[in-house]
Amino acid sequence: MNNPVVVEVSRGAMVESRHRGAIAVVDADGCAVLALGDVERPIFPRSAVKALQALVLMESGAAERFALTETELALACASHGGEPDHIATAQSILSRTGLDVAALRCGAHAPIHQPAAAALYRAGQAASPLHNNCSGKHAGFLCVACAMGADRPGYLEPAHPVQREVRSVIESLSNASLADERRAVDGCSAPTWAVPLKNLALAFARFGTGVGLAPQRAKAAAQLRRVCAANPWHVAGTGRFCTEIMRLFGARVFVKTGAEGVVCAAFPGDGLGIAVKCDDGATRAAEVAMAALIVRFCALSDKDRAGLEHFLRPSLRNWNGITVGALGPAELVMGGGIS
Amino acid sequence: MNNPVVVEVSRGAMVESRHRGAIAVVDADGCAVLALGDVERPIFPRSAVKALQALVLMESGAAERFALTETELALACASHGGEPDHIATAQSILSRTGLDVAALRCGAHAPIHQPAAAALYRAGQAASPLHNNCSGKHAGFLCVACAMGADRPGYLEPAHPVQREVRSVIESLSNASLADERRAVDGCSAPTWAVPLKNLALAFARFGTGVGLAPQRAKAAAQLRRVCAANPWHVAGTGRFCTEIMRLFGARVFVKTGAEGVVCAAFPGDGLGIAVKCDDGATRAAEVAMAALIVRFCALSDKDRAGLEHFLRPSLRNWNGITVGALGPAELVMGGGIS
Repeated sequence: MNNPVVVEVSRGAMVESRHRGAIAVVDADGCAVLALGDVERPIFPRSAVKALQALVLMESGAAERFALTETELALACASHGGEPDHIATAQSILSRTGLDVAALRCGAHAPIHQPAAAALYRAGQAASPLHNNCSGKHAGFLCVACAMGADRPGYLEPAHPVQREVRSVIESLSNASLADERRAVDGCSAPTWAVPLKNLALAFARFGTGVGLAPQRAKAAAQLRRVCAANPWHVAGTGRFCTEIMRLFGARVFVKTGAEGVVCAAFPGDGLGIAVKCDDGATRAAEVAMAALIVRFCALSDKDRAGLEHFLRPSLRNWNGITVGALGPAELVMGGGIS
Repeated sequence: MNNPVVVEVSRGAMVESRHRGAIAVVDADGCAVLALGDVERPIFPRSAVKALQALVLMESGAAERFALTETELALACASHGGEPDHIATAQSILSRTGLDVAALRCGAHAPIHQPAAAALYRAGQAASPLHNNCSGKHAGFLCVACAMGADRPGYLEPAHPVQREVRSVIESLSNASLADERRAVDGCSAPTWAVPLKNLALAFARFGTGVGLAPQRAKAAAQLRRVCAANPWHVAGTGRFCTEIMRLFGARVFVKTGAEGVVCAAFPGDGLGIAVKCDDGATRAAEVAMAALIVRFCALSDKDRAGLEHFLRPSLRNWNGITVGALGPAELVMGGGIS
C-alpha cells in the first residue's frame, strides 16, 4: 500500500520535496474517525509514548513516594532541549532517589537547543547523559526501579520489572500485543516495541479521556496531561513544537513527537487519539501534519488559528533570512475541516 | 507517478522508515542507462551543481588571472564543513581579489563540522559568512565578477553577468532550458533553477567525459574533476560523503551532494552521469542510493568494496554506541550489478 503525500515542501513556485505518511484518528472505543494510508502497519512510536511510559511512574507509587514536583513529572514525559533548567530538573529527580548522573544509561549527546549547546562548549564542558533529551524519562525509570526495590543498573533490560510494567501499560492502552519480534532499541537504549498505528491512536484516545481505563490509571493519565499542559516548556523546550502547541492549547491538546517522523496526540475534549508516522522519518512533516489535524478536529478561535499558522505552514528562510519556500499539509490531511 | 522506495531504514528486525526517489543514469549522448521513477520531473539541483557553476570561474579566465590554487578551486566546488582550513582557503580566495568577508552575500551559519562549531563557540566567536558551507563558491563568484569588471554587491542577482553565465553553462550542459518560472532562491541566496532529473544526469555525463563540449569547456571540466579528486577534503570535509567517496575512488568518481536529497555524480571511465533526488529531501538516503549506484556501475576492487560498505549500509548507532539499525538500498537500486 502506498501511503499518500501528507506534506509538501515548496521552494519558489514549485514543490521541491514531498513527505508521505499514514494518519490514524480514533475515538476511545477504537472507532476510526480518519484513516489515511496503512494504519494497520506496526511502527516504532519512539519518544511519542513517553507520557504513556510515565504512567508507570504514577501507578507504581514512585512519583508520590519521591514527592516528584509537577515540572519533574513533565520532564519525565519530555524530549527536552537540554536547556539549563531541563538539566537542573533532571538532576533534581535523580537526587530524590539519592542517585546521580552516573546512574543514567541513556548516553550523552549535546543539547538539542543550539544556544544551550553553544553555552556548554563556551564553558569548556562536555555533554553528559543529563543533556540527553531522554534524561527525564530515564530519571523517572530509576525512580520506579527504586520504588519497586528492583535492581537499578539493569533498568533498560526488556525483562527488567520497570520495562515489563511499561510494556504491560502500553499493551493495555493500545489493545495490541507488544511482540518480542517487534522489539528494537531506541536512541536512548530503552526498548521500543512496534505498535500498529491505529492502536497507537487508540492508546492516546484512552490516555486523553480515561475511557475504558481502571480509575487509578485514568487518574494518573489526567495528572500527567495536567502537568504537561501546565508546564509545556519542560516537555520539549524553547520554540519547540510540543511546547508551543501545548502553550497555545493548554489542556485541549496533548501532543508528543518521536524520532523518525512520529507524532501522537490526544484531543480530550473531542475524545480523540491521533497517531502520525511519516514514511521517511521526517519530523518537519509530522509536525505540519499534526498542526493540520488540530485545524481539522479542534474548534479554533482566531487566536488559536493565528498561533497555529506558523506550525501549519512554516516558512523556509535561508541564511540571509529570505523566505525561499514553505511547508504545508496536503489537501487530504486538511479534509473538510477548514473554514 | 509514484517514485519507488530507493532506501530503507531498519531498526531491529523491522523496516522503520522508507525513502522514495528518482534516479537517472545516462551516457554523454543522453541515452538512458537507468531510469527509476519520474526522471522527467524538474528538480532543484541545489549544491550538487557547484562544480558546474565553477566552470564559469575557469572559462571567464578568473581562475588564471587570480592564480587560484588547486585547493581554492576545490573549495569553489564545495559544500565545506567550516573546518579551520576551509575557512583559511575561502579567505585566501577572497584576498586574491582584494576583498574580504564583507563581500560575501551567502549569510552566516555555524560550521557543519560539529567539532569546528564547538571550537568556535569555545573561542567565544560567532559564525561568519566564511563558515557558510557555500563560502568557497561565493568567493569564486566574486572572482568572476572582478574578472568581468561587473559590479560585486549584486553578484547573486539572476540578471547579474555572473549568474547569467552560470545559467548559460548549465543550460548548455544539461540541454535543458532554465526557465524563469522554475527559478528559486537557494539556502545561500544564489539563484537555483529546476532541471529535469535526466537532463541533470546528462550534464554530469558531459562534465565527466567532455563529450559534446567545446574544447575549452572540456578542459575546464577535466581540471575541476582533477582538483576535486586530488583535494577531496576541500569539497566537503572530515568524514563527509563526497570527501570519503572521492578519497576512495579518486578520479574514477566525481560526486557532489545538494540539499533536499540531491546527489549527482560522473563516472568518467564508464562515460556515465548520475542524478538522484529523494522525494522527501533526505540526504541520508541520497547518499546510500549513490553508493549503490557506484556498486552497480563501477568495477570495484575488494578494497573499493570494503571502503564503500560503510556508505552502502551505514549502521545506525545510538548514544551508547549500540547498533540499533541500518540504512540500505532497495533491491531495484542495486539491480543486477552486485556479484
